[in-house]
Amino acid sequence: MTSKSDRRAVIGGKGPNTREEIVARALNIAALEGLGALSIGRLAKELKMSKSGLFVHFGSKENLETAVVERASILFFDHVLVPIEENGREGIERVWALCDSWLDFVEQGILPGGYFFTGALFQCAEQSGSIPKQIKRIARDWFDALRDALEQARSQEQVRADIDIKRTAFELNGILLGAQWSQLLSHKDYTSPRSAVLAKLSSLATEEIPANAFDSVKAWRKYLESRHE
Amino acid sequence: MTSKSDRRAVIGGKGPNTREEIVARALNIAALEGLGALSIGRLAKELKMSKSGLFVHFGSKENLETAVVERASILFFDHVLVPIEENGREGIERVWALCDSWLDFVEQGILPGGYFFTGALFQCAEQSGSIPKQIKRIARDWFDALRDALEQARSQEQVRADIDIKRTAFELNGILLGAQWSQLLSHKDYTSPRSAVLAKLSSLATEEIPANAFDSVKAWRKYLESRHE
Repeated sequence: MTSKSDRRAVIGGKGPNTREEIVARALNIAALEGLGALSIGRLAKELKMSKSGLFVHFGSKENLETAVVERASILFFDHVLVPIEENGREGIERVWALCDSWLDFVEQGILPGGYFFTGALFQCAEQSGSIPKQIKRIARDWFDALRDALEQARSQEQVRADIDIKRTAFELNGILLGAQWSQLLSHKDYTSPRSAVLAKLSSLATEEIPANAFDSVKAWRKYLESRHE
Repeated sequence: MTSKSDRRAVIGGKGPNTREEIVARALNIAALEGLGALSIGRLAKELKMSKSGLFVHFGSKENLETAVVERASILFFDHVLVPIEENGREGIERVWALCDSWLDFVEQGILPGGYFFTGALFQCAEQSGSIPKQIKRIARDWFDALRDALEQARSQEQVRADIDIKRTAFELNGILLGAQWSQLLSHKDYTSPRSAVLAKLSSLATEEIPANAFDSVKAWRKYLESRHE
């Protein structure tokens, strides 16, 4: 994970107006206010550039938006999916790691605001065009990763054979969305989403995993560590 | 519930350019594309009105947005909260009715798209100003209604005394958001959110409610009917 200052440099830093810097600034606007708030004019003003200077890089607002969504998806994949791939977590561990990293991504504000990707999906899904398509593809990639990990857990007999994988993936995804919803509302009623994820996993698990591993998130993390000693 | 043609008249009908008609058209744009897509200029064009004609009604874009969010919230309250209040459902029945009506509201497309209210909350929550405040108030009203119904169910001993009400409300809300997310994605992996709500209720219920009432959504509806015979 990058530190807070690194992150700021990635998504909103000041510097030479390279293509990368422009996309970073544009992503910052879109993350906080939605893609609809993004315009070449506003961006030119914020970056103290000419509109024509921006057009050199992007050619159109749609190209700019495409670059912004692409950058957002790289951040998401780099923080959530790639590390899990690299450290070789499998089965129920992988399911946990996916949910845990998704929550980290939201809690650490890797992308500020709630727009990317949840808000974007809710806003764009019923529109046509390349941007909604791009947003939906990322949502599907995420959902498929979650479902595949659950399937792997079932084939490794960590999860009961009678479990409906698609439904479980849908429920875990709902827990995460509900957590983000609560966090955005700064709701006092917010309770630990990781406990809710763990309770769900506990309800699916076979005797392959000792029952006391599910006692608390702390106990669960300790159990996972012990598997890799 | 209004019929499909009634609904169209409410949210997108053509007619004299009364304040109500203008708000209806504006709501239609915002529901499908977000509040950011709304402008006096676009609306004037769509309604074949002059911009100054629109300003007579609203005075500013912010006033127009306020009227749009207010209209959306009236539709939500009228379809989801008011009927439950009027038919006097209590306790666990009330919890069920709230979730069931929320899903109806989404499935019937009372407001097209996914922007209102879920997308709007995700998009606006971290912005300042009166519109995000309005959106957050509606989300809180919804969450409080769900939590209060659960508390009532617990005080009526339909739900176990050891249940964490806030956490349960958060989890039910997550099931609903997950369902809307899946519906927007037109995901083949989508499974009945009502079964998921019922499974949750079943896991909380006391012996006050016969266990076979939770066998299926159909069995549950039948059980609810039998309570009012």
